[in-house]
Amino acid sequence: STATTKTSTSGDPLPSWNDGAVKKSITDYVTDVTKEGSADFIPVRDRIATFDNDGTLWSEQPIYFELFYALDEVKAMAPKHPDWKTKQPFKAVLENNMGEMMKQGQKGLLQIFAITHSGMTTDQFDSTVSRWADTAKHPIKKKRYKDLVFQPMLELVKYLQANQFKVFIVSGGEIDFMRAWAEDVYGIPKNQIVGSSIKSKYEYNNGKPFIIKTPELDFIDDKEGKPVGIMKYIGRRPVFAAGNSDGDLQMLQWAASNKFKNFEIYVHHTDSVREWAYDRKSHIGTLDKGLDEAIAKKWAIADMKNDWKVIYPSGK
Amino acid sequence: STATTKTSTSGDPLPSWNDGAVKKSITDYVTDVTKEGSADFIPVRDRIATFDNDGTLWSEQPIYFELFYALDEVKAMAPKHPDWKTKQPFKAVLENNMGEMMKQGQKGLLQIFAITHSGMTTDQFDSTVSRWADTAKHPIKKKRYKDLVFQPMLELVKYLQANQFKVFIVSGGEIDFMRAWAEDVYGIPKNQIVGSSIKSKYEYNNGKPFIIKTPELDFIDDKEGKPVGIMKYIGRRPVFAAGNSDGDLQMLQWAASNKFKNFEIYVHHTDSVREWAYDRKSHIGTLDKGLDEAIAKKWAIADMKNDWKVIYPSGK
Ligand SMILES: [Ca+2]
Ligand SMILES: [Ca+2]
Repeated sequence: STATTKTSTSGDPLPSWNDGAVKKSITDYVTDVTKEGSADFIPVRDRIATFDNDGTLWSEQPIYFELFYALDEVKAMAPKHPDWKTKQPFKAVLENNMGEMMKQGQKGLLQIFAITHSGMTTDQFDSTVSRWADTAKHPIKKKRYKDLVFQPMLELVKYLQANQFKVFIVSGGEIDFMRAWAEDVYGIPKNQIVGSSIKSKYEYNNGKPFIIKTPELDFIDDKEGKPVGIMKYIGRRPVFAAGNSDGDLQMLQWAASNKFKNFEIYVHHTDSVREWAYDRKSHIGTLDKGLDEAIAKKWAIADMKNDWKVIYPSGK
Repeated sequence: STATTKTSTSGDPLPSWNDGAVKKSITDYVTDVTKEGSADFIPVRDRIATFDNDGTLWSEQPIYFELFYALDEVKAMAPKHPDWKTKQPFKAVLENNMGEMMKQGQKGLLQIFAITHSGMTTDQFDSTVSRWADTAKHPIKKKRYKDLVFQPMLELVKYLQANQFKVFIVSGGEIDFMRAWAEDVYGIPKNQIVGSSIKSKYEYNNGKPFIIKTPELDFIDDKEGKPVGIMKYIGRRPVFAAGNSDGDLQMLQWAASNKFKNFEIYVHHTDSVREWAYDRKSHIGTLDKGLDEAIAKKWAIADMKNDWKVIYPSGK
């Protein structure tokens, strides 16, 4: 890279982080590995940082926000599908009957996922998700989902970028769903957003090419899939990895195996007042084995309640 | 992007291109779409350029260079596989019997490909390919394969990058094979190299994680696969696309469907003295339908013999 951007030496790069061991470990690490002549210096092209999304960059309770999208879309599509009024799992969605929806299990969820994520062009999907992200609000927080991102993590992403780290999202979420809004919200280019994917196919009709999203599964970017996705999309190990659940453990292990000095961090949801508090026994974002390994290996653990001055960006 | 790199206004950015219609069309395009206030101005994040590799950035005759790699590797591996002396397709490779090798057909090629591209870790594969690229020489040209890259195309890549285009390789070649050497040779980051792929899997033994390349096919990045690969890895249409064969036609069509002003270019192998001359009837790099469409749609066609002052970098 020929970029010559330098971190501003004046001012705190992480103003929403309380002073303490975690914040200091981050800035010590970045300072150490970016200083010319440091024994731990990392060449720019090896400064790869990977961030999980759900629960790491934005909230994920009471259900993954992408599932909120799918439920909203089923409702938006319903007028064109009158049979859904009597057909599960759609009936339950249209009646806001969460209990009945859960009874439909994995199979029901996959049907909802397929109908809302496939059968359209990539352009159509992108504009539908963008429109949703610009307007839809979280039922409990009463804010737009895209405003329920973690201010301290936005600062961390920016701080790393200012120090010439190339920051990637490596998430279990569907890749095109994230790309529709995350580039603007996080300042991470679309091609640096990695996720789970379904297959798509190229079609060419009357001189017009388009790409259709099919319901066929392509890749699951979770657990063992995360290091695999990293090698597939990035081609080198990260030196910095951030996650919040057992689904990120393999990604953190992969970063920890880097020959360069590396940094692993878990976001620990400990704030039942400002966000949510959950870990070992949560149905979403379970952090159990990962927490044990983080403690054993002295990885950083960001305690939301104690390490973060604010959770969400102010004024939104 | 926060980069502020500007193209040098002094000097010719494409010194190895002869002055003429093709060179002028390239510089006119880049000047037009990067000038603030131009009606055709393209925001930096939409300046996506995609280049085919074999036959577009380096030579591909008399067989794809990746196949030379596979044949060299079979020979290097042979001492550990004494049975290959009597077992096809390996026997033919070890005896340099091209006629017999061709008789082994697609199945034989796939066996050679599998044995040389899978069953090892990503680290092992990367270092084996790197070593080969640093030393192995082309049997006819007597130069290293990595020096048989096209100097005019290196200049074009650099020129686009200097004008804040993000340049990607989108090739039918195996992705990890290219990533092992192409980053340094072309100045294109590993994560911007897209290719065909085989599946890999994560393993964790005694506290050490590694990723193993398996023989299972994952994705073919050719023909219809190219626009699909572009959306998968990049997430937006290119505005600039370069290829040399019918395998690139869909990629060029995809670029041509961009709402921004776009540029499509075919490298036409017309130089039987300095490189090779082939197109419509070649067994490799067939350019037939693509040539018709390029002519009909007035896409640029770089005539190697007439448009390029030199083919390969001098002094190598
Ligand atoms: Ca998560
Ligand atoms: Ca080619």
